[in-house]
Amino acid sequence: MPKPIAVVLLSGGLDSATTVAIAAAEGYEAHAMSFDYGQLHSVELAAAARVARAAGVTRHLVLRIDLGRIGGSALTDPNIQVPKGRGADAMGSDIPVTYVPARNTIFLAYALGWAEVLGASDIFIGVNALDYSGYPDCRPEFIEAFEKMANLATRKGTQEGRPIRIHTPLVHLTKAQIIARGLSLGVDYGLTSTCYDPGPDGQACGLCDACSLRLKGFAENGLRDPVTYVAR
Amino acid sequence: MPKPIAVVLLSGGLDSATTVAIAAAEGYEAHAMSFDYGQLHSVELAAAARVARAAGVTRHLVLRIDLGRIGGSALTDPNIQVPKGRGADAMGSDIPVTYVPARNTIFLAYALGWAEVLGASDIFIGVNALDYSGYPDCRPEFIEAFEKMANLATRKGTQEGRPIRIHTPLVHLTKAQIIARGLSLGVDYGLTSTCYDPGPDGQACGLCDACSLRLKGFAENGLRDPVTYVAR
Repeated sequence: MPKPIAVVLLSGGLDSATTVAIAAAEGYEAHAMSFDYGQLHSVELAAAARVARAAGVTRHLVLRIDLGRIGGSALTDPNIQVPKGRGADAMGSDIPVTYVPARNTIFLAYALGWAEVLGASDIFIGVNALDYSGYPDCRPEFIEAFEKMANLATRKGTQEGRPIRIHTPLVHLTKAQIIARGLSLGVDYGLTSTCYDPGPDGQACGLCDACSLRLKGFAENGLRDPVTYVAR
Repeated sequence: MPKPIAVVLLSGGLDSATTVAIAAAEGYEAHAMSFDYGQLHSVELAAAARVARAAGVTRHLVLRIDLGRIGGSALTDPNIQVPKGRGADAMGSDIPVTYVPARNTIFLAYALGWAEVLGASDIFIGVNALDYSGYPDCRPEFIEAFEKMANLATRKGTQEGRPIRIHTPLVHLTKAQIIARGLSLGVDYGLTSTCYDPGPDGQACGLCDACSLRLKGFAENGLRDPVTYVAR
């Protein structure tokens, strides 16, 4: 029997690298999807390509989309500063300026379209509701609502057998648990890129929310993060 | 008091031209959003610009997105033929090849992002569940599910006052009723473009599903469609 196909959203960060490894370990043939959305930290797209290659995905589709023209986020607007030094414990209580309006809704909508063309019923996304930045579109209640909508939106959902399922294998894990899980599956985190505001050669800043969470996760495993940080 | 802002999805066709007129008549300040999504019938973008100008929208944002690379539709893939001569009565019983996987989900996701940046709670889309081609993402149950999801996806939905509302003023109207409504609001349907497979100068084919429905709607009002059709 051929493996079922899954569309996996792949940013090139630590979470999505773990997610694609989990999809493969669960017996799916992974098709990875990334977005060139005007993110200022576009080094993550090079990371996504490295991760996709290492994970042996069947295809890696990178779509160029125009989120920057909608604006409203520090990740797409050079005039909005990425916050630094908040520390992992201060996060989650408010929605920070790095939030990109409706980003996960847009990414999942594309994944849904591609899944439909591929005849796939399964979509994986590495959202996390525990060690996260407080984005509303990372919460399980959002994912559930998206899944319901997806099954009404599509030919697949309305006419054919198996319903569409949005898999969120990381949603209830801490960053430390995500890293431990990925390492047990052979993920090379040295290939990934997490920082919101990397240096010219892709070095992580070590101070933004994403870096803070990542460093805490490695520290809690008693490990050193394999990526390069800006020297201070 | 300033008018509330609404994001209106504008394809440049008959339905969306009517929808933007309705949004204005209901007291909204309309911001129109269109997509250059690799549609083979891209003359509709010129129509969208004409309609936006005539409707006096505050801004008309055209986003270039990569739906063509996902494929799977006669509207984006030149190798899939647009069906002709099915007649308006044969439609609605199956999902035709002109269906673009997850298109309305993707369009609404972008509208949601823009609404969030604009501080708007209202999104208008001219879907129609009566005289339509049988697309799953035109049905009221899809729109309701999207609205629920939208209110969980966003800063607006989760933190601030008025919930997000997806307005579908045409959903229960026949094509003839839509045209009558639009004419009463002063819509110039000569500016619009509906055809899935227009000629080189933008003339409508008169035979695709979209043309069939449109012609029937004008005929039922005892009117002649003001756009130009390919001579036969």
